[in-house]
Amino acid sequence: MKKIAVMTSGGDAPGMNAAVRAVVRKSIYHGLEVYGVHRGFLGLLNDDIKPMNLSSVADVIQRGGTVLRSARCEEFKEKDNQVKAAKILRDKGIEGIIVIGGDGSFRGAERLASQGIKAIGVPGTIDNDIPYTDYTIGFDTAVNTALDAINKTRDTATSHERTFVIEVMGRDCGDIALAAGLAGGAESILVPEIEYDIEEVCQRLRKGAQRGKLHSIILVAEGVASGFEVGEQIKQKTGFETRVIVLGHIQRGGTPSSFDRVLASKLAAKAVDLLIEGQSSKMVGIKENKIVNVDILNAIDAPKKFDKEMYDLAKVLSI
Amino acid sequence: MKKIAVMTSGGDAPGMNAAVRAVVRKSIYHGLEVYGVHRGFLGLLNDDIKPMNLSSVADVIQRGGTVLRSARCEEFKEKDNQVKAAKILRDKGIEGIIVIGGDGSFRGAERLASQGIKAIGVPGTIDNDIPYTDYTIGFDTAVNTALDAINKTRDTATSHERTFVIEVMGRDCGDIALAAGLAGGAESILVPEIEYDIEEVCQRLRKGAQRGKLHSIILVAEGVASGFEVGEQIKQKTGFETRVIVLGHIQRGGTPSSFDRVLASKLAAKAVDLLIEGQSSKMVGIKENKIVNVDILNAIDAPKKFDKEMYDLAKVLSI
Amino acid sequence: MKKIAVMTSGGDAPGMNAAVRAVVRKSIYHGLEVYGVHRGFLGLLNDDIKPMNLSSVADVIQRGGTVLRSARCEEFKEKDNQVKAAKILRDKGIEGIIVIGGDGSFRGAERLASQGIKAIGVPGTIDNDIPYTDYTIGFDTAVNTALDAINKTRDTATSHERTFVIEVMGRDCGDIALAAGLAGGAESILVPEIEYDIEEVCQRLRKGAQRGKLHSIILVAEGVASGFEVGEQIKQKTGFETRVIVLGHIQRGGTPSSFDRVLASKLAAKAVDLLIEGQSSKMVGIKENKIVNVDILNAIDAPKKFDKEMYDLAKVLSI
Amino acid sequence: MKKIAVMTSGGDAPGMNAAVRAVVRKSIYHGLEVYGVHRGFLGLLNDDIKPMNLSSVADVIQRGGTVLRSARCEEFKEKDNQVKAAKILRDKGIEGIIVIGGDGSFRGAERLASQGIKAIGVPGTIDNDIPYTDYTIGFDTAVNTALDAINKTRDTATSHERTFVIEVMGRDCGDIALAAGLAGGAESILVPEIEYDIEEVCQRLRKGAQRGKLHSIILVAEGVASGFEVGEQIKQKTGFETRVIVLGHIQRGGTPSSFDRVLASKLAAKAVDLLIEGQSSKMVGIKENKIVNVDILNAIDAPKKFDKEMYDLAKVLSI
Repeated sequence: MKKIAVMTSGGDAPGMNAAVRAVVRKSIYHGLEVYGVHRGFLGLLNDDIKPMNLSSVADVIQRGGTVLRSARCEEFKEKDNQVKAAKILRDKGIEGIIVIGGDGSFRGAERLASQGIKAIGVPGTIDNDIPYTDYTIGFDTAVNTALDAINKTRDTATSHERTFVIEVMGRDCGDIALAAGLAGGAESILVPEIEYDIEEVCQRLRKGAQRGKLHSIILVAEGVASGFEVGEQIKQKTGFETRVIVLGHIQRGGTPSSFDRVLASKLAAKAVDLLIEGQSSKMVGIKENKIVNVDILNAIDAPKKFDKEMYDLAKVLSI
Repeated sequence: MKKIAVMTSGGDAPGMNAAVRAVVRKSIYHGLEVYGVHRGFLGLLNDDIKPMNLSSVADVIQRGGTVLRSARCEEFKEKDNQVKAAKILRDKGIEGIIVIGGDGSFRGAERLASQGIKAIGVPGTIDNDIPYTDYTIGFDTAVNTALDAINKTRDTATSHERTFVIEVMGRDCGDIALAAGLAGGAESILVPEIEYDIEEVCQRLRKGAQRGKLHSIILVAEGVASGFEVGEQIKQKTGFETRVIVLGHIQRGGTPSSFDRVLASKLAAKAVDLLIEGQSSKMVGIKENKIVNVDILNAIDAPKKFDKEMYDLAKVLSI
Repeated sequence: MKKIAVMTSGGDAPGMNAAVRAVVRKSIYHGLEVYGVHRGFLGLLNDDIKPMNLSSVADVIQRGGTVLRSARCEEFKEKDNQVKAAKILRDKGIEGIIVIGGDGSFRGAERLASQGIKAIGVPGTIDNDIPYTDYTIGFDTAVNTALDAINKTRDTATSHERTFVIEVMGRDCGDIALAAGLAGGAESILVPEIEYDIEEVCQRLRKGAQRGKLHSIILVAEGVASGFEVGEQIKQKTGFETRVIVLGHIQRGGTPSSFDRVLASKLAAKAVDLLIEGQSSKMVGIKENKIVNVDILNAIDAPKKFDKEMYDLAKVLSI
Repeated sequence: MKKIAVMTSGGDAPGMNAAVRAVVRKSIYHGLEVYGVHRGFLGLLNDDIKPMNLSSVADVIQRGGTVLRSARCEEFKEKDNQVKAAKILRDKGIEGIIVIGGDGSFRGAERLASQGIKAIGVPGTIDNDIPYTDYTIGFDTAVNTALDAINKTRDTATSHERTFVIEVMGRDCGDIALAAGLAGGAESILVPEIEYDIEEVCQRLRKGAQRGKLHSIILVAEGVASGFEVGEQIKQKTGFETRVIVLGHIQRGGTPSSFDRVLASKLAAKAVDLLIEGQSSKMVGIKENKIVNVDILNAIDAPKKFDKEMYDLAKVLSI
């Protein structure tokens, strides 16, 4: 292995730049040449590939987003394009690639692998929806962004004795809602993994109000319902004034937290090690606080386990 | 004047606590007794009034919201209740009151004044919609909160080349949208004071895209339209993918900025001075970087002047 | 077990309030009465103990510091005082106590245990210097505070091409310096666990300068040397202009991060479970991403393992 | 005027990039060509000058530091070099220059003006030490950074009942200490403009302690004394445990606040207008909330007025 490439793909996540930086510097440390593919698989098909050196990743570690940019690429599902992409890489002498992204990106990586390019996946997505890794790059930052919104809402909630509904990201995975909700002391947390009972939510609100609770915050993962819907339901059932916040894409931004930068650095370094060892079709991850790797196909197909114990704890603590 | 009271009323704003603290400490410094009215005019009617001392305002300067809480109070529009409120104050020997809030709160203050309680208004509202003061307490913090959202959106916008619509507060006054939009480098800023032309907004987006601009951010004051409406219009007219963020009440929260705390301290101290001088029916404000006072009726009736020059500058700088 | 107490002791750490809240609410959920001991072992000796209810811990989860306060207490090393303390607790019917703090606090807990009070330790200290737990409460927040300082320094460092020395906390444990240094892309990281060679540090600076590096940041744990000393040495050896920052106690403050609040909640809940089970002389911790418990004596005597692999990675990535 | 240049010089300040961006975009809007001089006067002498376009200032508005970099340049005090610099500019057809910096930078600008290059100064320095402008670019951000440190210190101070000394920037001007101290509720504020009496500082600490105050924070501008000195004095006189924080250059960094970005945009736009009008040897500023301009020599020689009223208010409020 003498030349490798790195790309970011799918939704961006804070810490992706720390991962790109680690790939580049670790590669150079081991004497590899490293190339950056811009705009994910779309850029790969368009040969938007540039050599990277130490300076390419100077002063990027603290930046949100991804300096390599990202894009969707439906065309990459076609076999012809996969063959073409592998050829583009091979023509440059690039034997391996590190793909930073979510499960869609890993599918792309696997397709490259099946065309003879050694491919390693690094889990980068704020949703934390990848199995076989306890954390994905970007999750910690996103949760802290959601938590900051809860902190701010709390200030005004306490002053006014109102009910707030905060919609956070998470289509299939409620981890952002769960972590931010537990950390923020939310009254109820609605996640896609557990069916919710609006009546129970309202019951908790009513009990809290009777006890003199000054405010209530309901976290809703976007995969469950829109915040506005939930707010409307609560208002109709309880008569309580509700206010809705839709955090949206600000959860993808912001300077990455220390946790995400350290995780990104460790995972990316491991990915380089795997390529050097000649491995392919693997995803790196963190399991039980250790950097590990698994077959990338596992990471695509397996369902992510939901932390029911943490969910129950959040309920106990918000009595 | 030996005893005075202080209350916060209407929507809360970051810096209200700094104002309450300054009222209490300045009053005690001058040998006055000072009382806190809880929950605004509602609390006043319910005699929810407590003596305050130096410790009552220890460690509140950095907190968002208001330790005196706030509430709406439709009943205070009734003459009987105004008479009752004045009596409640008079029975405790309270001769003057400082009301921190917006124009609705000033109306209440004026009603107390007409019942013989000397009343001074302090402009505290994030909207910056009070005439005769260049800034209201809370505005600077709210703009910085909106700006932080723009910063974060920018990260992901750059990575993905998308259009974002961010809805900020401002029913009749576009100052939050204008300041955050100029400071954040937004492509278009929609404010209630200037009619907007969706076609022009789209035209700017198209031009930017042609020039290779990586992202576009549109700020919308809530008084103009909902962010979702604007997003939908843009999508239909340009075909660009748009994402919507509704910041909502997080703009009311957060630890107050230095600007808001300094402003709050100065305005509140001035309000105490005015009561000591025996004045009433005044609003304190900051004009041309000086602490001033005006007849409170002016602050209620006059329209707030919009900074058209700044609006035009924002347009020039977002070419 | 019907009545338990909770205290914070030693240096405060962000997240201690989240732990206190979780102790209180989990206890109440299980029908226990819970008391708060103010000012650590000093307050215990002075019978500064108050019953806590759901409202005692309302709106504390987001606050830095500890609402139960903390204090040093040399007197508690005396046997007589330990007997007295146990009697004070027993007289109130308190059978178990949860002590949130560092190794000194655990020694105190163990002394209470030897007097017949069931005692459980919860690791709360920013230094991350407790063995048998991968993370202590407060560490993540402290690292992010240090990282924020690095981010800000980086801005000005890039503009001016200077060398900065940032002194962070860590008397015997270099974890804050290591994590913030890796996450912040520091050129060199000096920790108490690894002897440092000022000549090597200077050599890296010189090489960086030759390569056109715009700035250099050196992280120094306080246990190694003062930032000013290191700055002086570098200046003398390289002639480079150096600037020194001493973060000091701001690392102990700030609203706790999501990680710290979630960790605090889980550890504290586990501590309550242990008391209910009738256990004593245990410390709860997180190992391999699982909440565990160990004999508290282990946590006191064993040395904390240093993550040499992470240290080496930081070196590789800062080439 | 067809071609102009812009440079940043002296210590960097948050918001300088917003000013550079505004110069570039406003110039292009008016049909001017605009050049960026890198590394201040040093770069000017080395002909480190590049044409700028809209993209040169894309995504810089939110960044701390200065993309044009800065440097010291003793050589520019020599007449020969001033002649040389003017020639370099003239050879490129550059007739006017906008210099963003402090009083040293304005001296350089004035020297260029005396060589026939029209020069306008824009006050950019965190110290707020420029007369004839109420605010300099960067001051608001720096104060908020110092305030954030106070907020964090407060958390731990409250938990432990200690005295903290925080050294902030300000060699000749105490404005950062004053604003952060008032906003942060500091017990004492030591500024270069007012002689301090350590005995009075200690007296306030003792009184606070008697009253049960939980913590004390002393702000010290670096121009008064080092934080460590003041801490030592307090410890010796009162016996109170003191802790020292030296914020140093982190005050120069961070994403600029809204206030600084808006101010920077307005001042820079005005500077372009002045060049278009054919003016020279002016400094733009904000006086009484209006954008104004004064003879640049005034800004260099006049002393900055200290806000004694605000200083006295801070004392009253920290009783």
